[in-house]
Amino acid sequence: MKFLTGVSKQDTMEISELLKAKAGRQVKVSGAIHTIRDMGTVAFVILRKREGLLQCVYVKGNTDFRLKDLQEEAAVEVEGILMENEKAPNKIEIQMKTLTVLSMPEDGMLPLPVSKWKLNTSLEAKLNYRPISLRNIRERARFRIQEGLTRAFRDFLYSQGFTEIHTPKIGAKGAEGGANIFKLQYFHRPAVLAQSPQFYKQMMVGVFDRVFETGPVFRAEKHNTKRHLNEYTSLDLEMGYIDSFEDIMAMETGYLKYAMELLEAEYKRELQILDITLPKTERIPAVRFSEIKEKAAKKYGHKMRNPFDLEPEEEQLIGRYAKEEWGSDFVFVTHYPSKKRPFYAMDDPEDARYTLSFDLLFDGMEITTGGQRIHDYQMLMDKIAARGMETDGMEQYLSAFRHGMPPHGGLGIGLERLTMKLVGEENVRETTLFPRDLSRLDP
Amino acid sequence: MKFLTGVSKQDTMEISELLKAKAGRQVKVSGAIHTIRDMGTVAFVILRKREGLLQCVYVKGNTDFRLKDLQEEAAVEVEGILMENEKAPNKIEIQMKTLTVLSMPEDGMLPLPVSKWKLNTSLEAKLNYRPISLRNIRERARFRIQEGLTRAFRDFLYSQGFTEIHTPKIGAKGAEGGANIFKLQYFHRPAVLAQSPQFYKQMMVGVFDRVFETGPVFRAEKHNTKRHLNEYTSLDLEMGYIDSFEDIMAMETGYLKYAMELLEAEYKRELQILDITLPKTERIPAVRFSEIKEKAAKKYGHKMRNPFDLEPEEEQLIGRYAKEEWGSDFVFVTHYPSKKRPFYAMDDPEDARYTLSFDLLFDGMEITTGGQRIHDYQMLMDKIAARGMETDGMEQYLSAFRHGMPPHGGLGIGLERLTMKLVGEENVRETTLFPRDLSRLDP
Repeated sequence: MKFLTGVSKQDTMEISELLKAKAGRQVKVSGAIHTIRDMGTVAFVILRKREGLLQCVYVKGNTDFRLKDLQEEAAVEVEGILMENEKAPNKIEIQMKTLTVLSMPEDGMLPLPVSKWKLNTSLEAKLNYRPISLRNIRERARFRIQEGLTRAFRDFLYSQGFTEIHTPKIGAKGAEGGANIFKLQYFHRPAVLAQSPQFYKQMMVGVFDRVFETGPVFRAEKHNTKRHLNEYTSLDLEMGYIDSFEDIMAMETGYLKYAMELLEAEYKRELQILDITLPKTERIPAVRFSEIKEKAAKKYGHKMRNPFDLEPEEEQLIGRYAKEEWGSDFVFVTHYPSKKRPFYAMDDPEDARYTLSFDLLFDGMEITTGGQRIHDYQMLMDKIAARGMETDGMEQYLSAFRHGMPPHGGLGIGLERLTMKLVGEENVRETTLFPRDLSRLDP
Repeated sequence: MKFLTGVSKQDTMEISELLKAKAGRQVKVSGAIHTIRDMGTVAFVILRKREGLLQCVYVKGNTDFRLKDLQEEAAVEVEGILMENEKAPNKIEIQMKTLTVLSMPEDGMLPLPVSKWKLNTSLEAKLNYRPISLRNIRERARFRIQEGLTRAFRDFLYSQGFTEIHTPKIGAKGAEGGANIFKLQYFHRPAVLAQSPQFYKQMMVGVFDRVFETGPVFRAEKHNTKRHLNEYTSLDLEMGYIDSFEDIMAMETGYLKYAMELLEAEYKRELQILDITLPKTERIPAVRFSEIKEKAAKKYGHKMRNPFDLEPEEEQLIGRYAKEEWGSDFVFVTHYPSKKRPFYAMDDPEDARYTLSFDLLFDGMEITTGGQRIHDYQMLMDKIAARGMETDGMEQYLSAFRHGMPPHGGLGIGLERLTMKLVGEENVRETTLFPRDLSRLDP
């Protein structure tokens, strides 16, 4: 019998600790051998650690092991002397004295050259060998940025009085309607996977006023594009007692500002690795759907096909317009047509063909859909009836409205898309750890 | 066209702001009318706000509205004078002058008496009317505690160098094996819902060294007990470069200490509402499975039926033993029998009938399973072969090991169970927003 009392200090050091330590002192580190560069009498053994790469110098005769006993991708523990070196990563290196192999790979020859600075291989190959390709420093850095974006979302919303919720992903009925629903058998009953936490977060506005969730959503869309995933992470919020749907856009602007500050403060290393210049978020233009659609079409000579929808190409042009006219990478497009929004969207009282809703475009791509929701029970029932919808399975959702709901609205941000645009990638699979698409279910 | 620049200050005040304001000043608040107590010439209109209840006083003739125009569960905005009152919630009240109805319910008569302090109704009724029952102050407070536990998990692990990951919930193969897997059709291919992020978090140890995820997991177990859910939130971590599996227990102890500190600091209001005394987490005993099983059986005269398994009743006795002998609500039970652990568990080199693994019991119930994993490729392949398992669909998981993995281990915490024990409930559905069980798929 013994007692556990909490995390005990490790005797191995992380890069951030080494950077604070004095050169000349003996240190111990652990890591995976990222690459070995043998120069004859001297060799560089580069360790991959969670905070980056660490150069260890092997000089024949100075160590208790032989270079040829090492292998790339071995997990090792190294003892040696910490030294400064302008040319090494982080300008430090370790002159190796002793080495212990913690784990030797069966096969140190990787299917991809992950130790190269840029992994110039096809997306297909990277995804096929996902646990290997992510060992590349730049590949993995994207997901540290993604962590920062998620963390910022939560921290910012905690500070704004939001409560975090966990809502079920298996349910009896989809929130968004339509055909893109994954179906499953739930103990001999038909069930579906959640397309969004929409119904749940709205119901919880009646409880906590402000709620958010960061979790997976599932869309059985048969799109095979660079921007669609069949499972993605949605950053969802819903807030009550709003004065107008602008409050929701203001909240998202606040989040984006906070996120950029957090990335700047806590993820500088990864921003440098990926050579990212953060977009400006001090002020984000908001412009009406019909207005910006026309303006962009006119400026760039684009022919509008459908006045009630935005094609991806039009989104790009609107993004370009916002950049050129207002110097902004982001633009809120407001007042989307009612027929393109779900039943719970609040119509604009001044023109019911449009809704009090918005998309946020980042560099010409939709990364958020949001808006004010209907809070009045009768208005909701009328809209459902007008759309010819069935209310089976929506009894508790509707009862929340029957028994009083404050004016409210919310939004959902596609985390992988936001990350993609921030790190400057063109395919959303590049910023998804393990993408799910029409053809990819594994790994 | 306009610009959004971030969250604008609301003109309505939250309870924490009112508590800092001077009595006598005019204030504006919004909220839902939780209950109305009409005493004749005076009436108390209690608002439900996200930070608690707020008493508003109606005196006939002093206001621009009539009491009979109000209804419970209406969302309103109130202006009036802030006053001190020893008997009111938070010892403040507002003498109402004007009131604006933001939203009037279709039906203010709720199916449950949510404005009572304790909602003494059946669990069945509470779950059937979930969006309503959670409007009760004590019911909702549990989920604020749950937020604190999740938030603490993430914040603590960020501080310990962990990276947050999002892994897919739809996959080709289950990580834990067995029959309790939900199956679905994925574009005409068979697929399953993730029983745990096990394979993914292990693969990501080879990338980030330390990772965690907080997300849903799905178990098609046909258990209808107070402690089983078919979908729950798992707090998962996995860490590389461990010296022993005790490092994992130490990390969990560190988390629990941090969580109790965070609850004490940020969730005092909810701790008071629920009258919770936080458990001690300074030192948690760890004792071998076979040893504690025998000790508890002996002390309480329990007859052991199976030396290689723990029955729920035995867990309770072990919990009682830990409380009586070591004054601890928690106890790590270590070295579980190999045959009760999955193939990836590391066997104890000193006795292969047992594993380098543990469960954490909280008040006599398992809330965590964890342990060291096999990191050596050949050892893993041998174990898979010995169990007669198929490796189809595990190619990428196995390739991570073939190409080198550090010694590592991890754990999964059932968030709803941890919350249940902390708030002193007996059924895990009490601490699940929208439980999924054999009979419940809705709401």
